[in-house]
Amino acid sequence: MRALFPGRFQPFHLGHLAVIEWLLTKYDEIIVVIGSGKDSHSIYNPFTAGERMVMIRNGLKEYNMDFKRVIFFPILESFTGGLWIRIIEQYSPKFDVIVSGNPLVVTNAKEAGYIVDLPPMFNRDLYNATKIRKLMIENDNKWSELVPKSVYEFIKEIKGDERLRDVAKSDY
Amino acid sequence: MRALFPGRFQPFHLGHLAVIEWLLTKYDEIIVVIGSGKDSHSIYNPFTAGERMVMIRNGLKEYNMDFKRVIFFPILESFTGGLWIRIIEQYSPKFDVIVSGNPLVVTNAKEAGYIVDLPPMFNRDLYNATKIRKLMIENDNKWSELVPKSVYEFIKEIKGDERLRDVAKSDY
Amino acid sequence: MRALFPGRFQPFHLGHLAVIEWLLTKYDEIIVVIGSGKDSHSIYNPFTAGERMVMIRNGLKEYNMDFKRVIFFPILESFTGGLWIRIIEQYSPKFDVIVSGNPLVVTNAKEAGYIVDLPPMFNRDLYNATKIRKLMIENDNKWSELVPKSVYEFIKEIKGDERLRDVAKSDY
Amino acid sequence: MRALFPGRFQPFHLGHLAVIEWLLTKYDEIIVVIGSGKDSHSIYNPFTAGERMVMIRNGLKEYNMDFKRVIFFPILESFTGGLWIRIIEQYSPKFDVIVSGNPLVVTNAKEAGYIVDLPPMFNRDLYNATKIRKLMIENDNKWSELVPKSVYEFIKEIKGDERLRDVAKSDY
Amino acid sequence: MRALFPGRFQPFHLGHLAVIEWLLTKYDEIIVVIGSGKDSHSIYNPFTAGERMVMIRNGLKEYNMDFKRVIFFPILESFTGGLWIRIIEQYSPKFDVIVSGNPLVVTNAKEAGYIVDLPPMFNRDLYNATKIRKLMIENDNKWSELVPKSVYEFIKEIKGDERLRDVAKSDY
Amino acid sequence: MRALFPGRFQPFHLGHLAVIEWLLTKYDEIIVVIGSGKDSHSIYNPFTAGERMVMIRNGLKEYNMDFKRVIFFPILESFTGGLWIRIIEQYSPKFDVIVSGNPLVVTNAKEAGYIVDLPPMFNRDLYNATKIRKLMIENDNKWSELVPKSVYEFIKEIKGDERLRDVAKSDY
Repeated sequence: MRALFPGRFQPFHLGHLAVIEWLLTKYDEIIVVIGSGKDSHSIYNPFTAGERMVMIRNGLKEYNMDFKRVIFFPILESFTGGLWIRIIEQYSPKFDVIVSGNPLVVTNAKEAGYIVDLPPMFNRDLYNATKIRKLMIENDNKWSELVPKSVYEFIKEIKGDERLRDVAKSDY
Repeated sequence: MRALFPGRFQPFHLGHLAVIEWLLTKYDEIIVVIGSGKDSHSIYNPFTAGERMVMIRNGLKEYNMDFKRVIFFPILESFTGGLWIRIIEQYSPKFDVIVSGNPLVVTNAKEAGYIVDLPPMFNRDLYNATKIRKLMIENDNKWSELVPKSVYEFIKEIKGDERLRDVAKSDY
Repeated sequence: MRALFPGRFQPFHLGHLAVIEWLLTKYDEIIVVIGSGKDSHSIYNPFTAGERMVMIRNGLKEYNMDFKRVIFFPILESFTGGLWIRIIEQYSPKFDVIVSGNPLVVTNAKEAGYIVDLPPMFNRDLYNATKIRKLMIENDNKWSELVPKSVYEFIKEIKGDERLRDVAKSDY
Repeated sequence: MRALFPGRFQPFHLGHLAVIEWLLTKYDEIIVVIGSGKDSHSIYNPFTAGERMVMIRNGLKEYNMDFKRVIFFPILESFTGGLWIRIIEQYSPKFDVIVSGNPLVVTNAKEAGYIVDLPPMFNRDLYNATKIRKLMIENDNKWSELVPKSVYEFIKEIKGDERLRDVAKSDY
Repeated sequence: MRALFPGRFQPFHLGHLAVIEWLLTKYDEIIVVIGSGKDSHSIYNPFTAGERMVMIRNGLKEYNMDFKRVIFFPILESFTGGLWIRIIEQYSPKFDVIVSGNPLVVTNAKEAGYIVDLPPMFNRDLYNATKIRKLMIENDNKWSELVPKSVYEFIKEIKGDERLRDVAKSDY
Repeated sequence: MRALFPGRFQPFHLGHLAVIEWLLTKYDEIIVVIGSGKDSHSIYNPFTAGERMVMIRNGLKEYNMDFKRVIFFPILESFTGGLWIRIIEQYSPKFDVIVSGNPLVVTNAKEAGYIVDLPPMFNRDLYNATKIRKLMIENDNKWSELVPKSVYEFIKEIKGDERLRDVAKSDY
């Protein structure tokens, strides 16, 4: 069985990693779809799809995940409206299960005829992308402990947290 | 003379129906254009264009309207910017009049050279789509009296009010 | 049961009308989807979606069809690739059957899980849109007998055959 | 050297004009790119790209600027995400410098390998498009002193300030 | 009166220049719209919109045209279908006349309510973009005499003719 | 160093595999980008992007390639025009080299500032996607020897060669 795990991964953090680890104990293959792939340089979507591809690769390598069993790729759409699952079907190997704790994604998945698997919440108060972006904007380095070390290093290398602070100051 | 009646119909309610009845006394044919056709599963646009097609059909049937004189179809665009009337011109039989009480739509219609007809407000405090969606989110069944009975049954059948509550809980 | 009848209807001719008549004997409701709705003014797609809406309405009226049982609307997409059925699902009332004699449309329909119904060929050598457009380009009035009389009159009124001859002369 | 000056110019005001004058003292040619070209009739983007083309032309004529050294054209994109500079590269003569005081635009420009030039702030509290639109909405004629006289006359001629007040009243 | 002169300008040649000269004797202002602006690197559209902007600027400068009276800018659309004039209306100063010898453009222009002006054919057998591209592909330098000298130099500088030969060899 | 290997992979064959093997001896990581991702069910692009993802995965597994060093993902664009490399930059980890034997891709790559690496032609007369699709259409099973065994089995499982024959018969 293949499970689809959709997310924006802005950024990819230790909670995402825990979900993937958990999924690998249950399914043969995991498809990680990076949504909102055309968006970047905004408060809600600071990183490009390509940068998020690197974060996921780095995290999976750091934690020695099996690359033969984890497929990941970006799509340009966001997970809104009624069509996004149909679009993913065009770009992805076939899948049986959609993994999400988001009520709307669960609704979409059921309407499209998929089994839904609710992942356990791995300390969601702590590992939370919105919170991580907030810490970056406030220049509070506590976010460094919420992402894989290799993701932290990559974000620092591309000055991703600086970029987010620039975005937050802009009103174009 | 043909009159164009643009709306989002989220959902189609008794106020919309009253406008169509009134228009049928004044014009030969009425073109009901469903805007924001590509949007669905959001707080502002919970229903797909196809679901709104069903609502309008059901409502017109329930009230014995003349299907030969009412044309209805969806467009993917929303009624914003300066081009939407020109796009409708590509998809619609020709029309002479645009029917709206919205100041911006009136401005667009005049700039495109159309006659504007202002519909009477049929108890707009009561029959109001924003209010109906709010009642759905709050799980207050009072909305059942604000839409045609056949529309109410259809929304219940597709669990449309549940979907809207799911959307309201989501923060993806 | 609802049957979906997809076509470009460039123009709507007596063969199309015969298919709709035949479908009305078999199904509760017929959904006629006008594809390639954003195309017009080309040799392959001379008429706008709106003009094709008028042709279908005129033809159905002339032959006294039941407007309560025939739904018709345009979509901007063409019937190519793997996604067009999924897009129609967003814009259309639900349907059970897809009606087509085109091998690719049949393949798409089966891959999307639909029942396929093959319409009888009502003198396809005669009633054929490609042939009708060819006659128009050659200014051979024989096409007048291949479309409903009301469609012929509409095309003449909008100078649609002249337009097609202009298109055929253009090399922009 | 060519300098690119990106903006929305909603509307074109005396602060923009001062930047262009200053740029003409430093660079051979100035490319003024009008962004968000497909947007209009909204509070944030009231004027069409074509109307903004006229405003810039009128302003440059009124102040006797050298039309051989100032290039201006619209693009449909807004200045968000990571791709807009690459899209401008397809539509524009080559340029060496990007002129902006906006932190995000500066970040984008540096990431794309361009030199950035920060224009002096010509009384930004006074000459500010957001403030001008606010004055228009409030029907406070003080905005007339903040734009070139010829821009004021053009906006009055197209009833642009009325349009903005209509937009502000709409809730479609 | 303003006249709109639509074209692809692949490349801008002496026939185009002659039309603009002729138009300047008849109209107050000329709007040159570069169509198919998103296309480039193909046999039919070898040059980017930005490169065509430079060609037009160079040609107008070489022949001392009045830059205050000639407006030129790219749009991404091609001149096909029924909507392109409506899109240009969003991006352009208002115009009264459309200038073209192409039967389809003439049809579109009349359907949209514009006056049409047919330019004299300035030796169309000689000054013809299709022919010039053919000469480039065949590496026959005779095309150098069919474009303004400054356009020839620009194309050589960007190795535009080499690019076209590469395109002609590709079968991706 | 990372090398980008763009292709349509319609289908993924032994020649593609040989290129990837050769690239793995020269570069740290290989990025295989599947172009024309939104196209499928046509003679030129019979397989969906998702099906091509499976083919590449199957082929790499069958030949024991190192999944940590090969990145592959689809983009919706085709490799035409001037912008596709810039779009890939948004979706991909950074790369230094573009690998192609196609003259136009080489031109695009150089214009975007990339190093180009020309792969050796691994019996291109034999391993050639156009030829393989032709064999499929003619129902000549010789194509089975030109693709990895696992790709052959996958195409048979999804009846991909039948689909291509259906497409070839269609004239919608």
